[in-house]
Amino acid sequence: VLSPAGDVLISTDQLLATRHFDPDATPVDLIARKAMARALSDIAAMAGAPLAGVVAAQLPRDYARADELFDACHAWAERFGCPLVGGDIATTPGPLGLIVTVLGTPHATRGPVRRDGAQPGDMVCVTGALGGSLDSGRHLTFEPRLAEGRALAETLGSRLHAMIDLSDGLGIDAGRIARASGVRIELDADRLPRHTDPRGEPLDWRRAAADGEDYELLFTIDPSDSGSELPTDAAGTPITVVGRVADAATDADRGMCVIRTSAGETIDARRLGWDHGG
Amino acid sequence: VLSPAGDVLISTDQLLATRHFDPDATPVDLIARKAMARALSDIAAMAGAPLAGVVAAQLPRDYARADELFDACHAWAERFGCPLVGGDIATTPGPLGLIVTVLGTPHATRGPVRRDGAQPGDMVCVTGALGGSLDSGRHLTFEPRLAEGRALAETLGSRLHAMIDLSDGLGIDAGRIARASGVRIELDADRLPRHTDPRGEPLDWRRAAADGEDYELLFTIDPSDSGSELPTDAAGTPITVVGRVADAATDADRGMCVIRTSAGETIDARRLGWDHGG
Repeated sequence: VLSPAGDVLISTDQLLATRHFDPDATPVDLIARKAMARALSDIAAMAGAPLAGVVAAQLPRDYARADELFDACHAWAERFGCPLVGGDIATTPGPLGLIVTVLGTPHATRGPVRRDGAQPGDMVCVTGALGGSLDSGRHLTFEPRLAEGRALAETLGSRLHAMIDLSDGLGIDAGRIARASGVRIELDADRLPRHTDPRGEPLDWRRAAADGEDYELLFTIDPSDSGSELPTDAAGTPITVVGRVADAATDADRGMCVIRTSAGETIDARRLGWDHGG
Repeated sequence: VLSPAGDVLISTDQLLATRHFDPDATPVDLIARKAMARALSDIAAMAGAPLAGVVAAQLPRDYARADELFDACHAWAERFGCPLVGGDIATTPGPLGLIVTVLGTPHATRGPVRRDGAQPGDMVCVTGALGGSLDSGRHLTFEPRLAEGRALAETLGSRLHAMIDLSDGLGIDAGRIARASGVRIELDADRLPRHTDPRGEPLDWRRAAADGEDYELLFTIDPSDSGSELPTDAAGTPITVVGRVADAATDADRGMCVIRTSAGETIDARRLGWDHGG
């Protein structure tokens, strides 16, 4: 039995072997971590605080590490502030799967932040850096941006118009905000904060826009309040302005997300990243 | 965003093709119905009222009836009073799966009913009739006993000590109450309310005790209040006394559930039903 103080957010997310992690190469602890962190990334994107979660586990019939997996799920859930209060176990002829449903509470004054609130004139921003998550293993070890989401709601209040977490890639996920909000989003390739490759070189902008599984927050801010500075970080994580929200002048603009390159090209950003994870 | 008035119950349940339904023979509408009804049966067992739910769907890559399946999930969720407020879709190399997480609110005065409250001296009761669910197709068309669970909490109040829904079979599920409560449960084979076979003959008691997937409520009642009659039905569904809760005199008794036959045998009821569904 849970005793929320008021409204409740809910989100469900599935982590499936092969699709979301390599079952032969991923430590059990990191499988559990990713399952919990992915689900909580959705709560972070609503600027919510975790309340509690449940896990439905699908185990191959001969799976020998179930106890270890459940212990790790509980430990990571606690670590992320979202204790597990129930679950279900099934054996399956399919891949190992963890289906996590989490509850959260919205920010007390800002309320839940959704993806449909972007307004023409908004700045488009991201937390952290993008790209290379799968190659680097960051997709297994990222921190859900819970503190950052809450800090943005606290600092920006009603100026924080829309937010989403970056799971499928900047282009696709920005397109989701554009579609839900009925606006056009324009991103600048040069402004994307990028992770480095193993040699220390910044990744190509296409990888930052398309790789996916960054689990950073993408959000839009009303810049009209010129008296207050835009924050440069959220809970210590850098914020970068990467674009703007434009009017949807035509039907084709509504839900459009483009990215402008330094060479002057304008590319449909929603088509970047579709093939990232199979 | 949900706005519960107070405490929240949560339960998660998986419906997997082959394991819980025959994917070749089951209409899409009944797949959706069973997924929702199974999850809500858990809320019924807590005497809760449905609040809202989310569904994670796992679809084989070539699955052609996804829209029909989702429409049916929404329709049955509404029908059972538990609107769907979110979801997630993944393609899978495994079987079709629907993982449903439901929220509920506990009874306002009785609070949530759990499986660990059975006391020595309690009567053990069930709603409805038992056995033959898989053969008859009832496992696809049962009504979750939501009204019944609430009515029992309303009528019996604190005399309603423990409750569970019968998914794996009377013997196994009664054993779960016995284990959680640290008591011994004694059932009478002759008293089990039984469904009939296709010729109209009552099923053997072993089938009533072991077939599983009845989704009736099993509950224990404090009989001490001799001034008030035991209800004979809950929301119109018959109630039958099928046994009693005994002291656990020894460690071996704690968590034991036996069934007594008319021939005078005493059988470990927890061993009935293990093989019912593969």
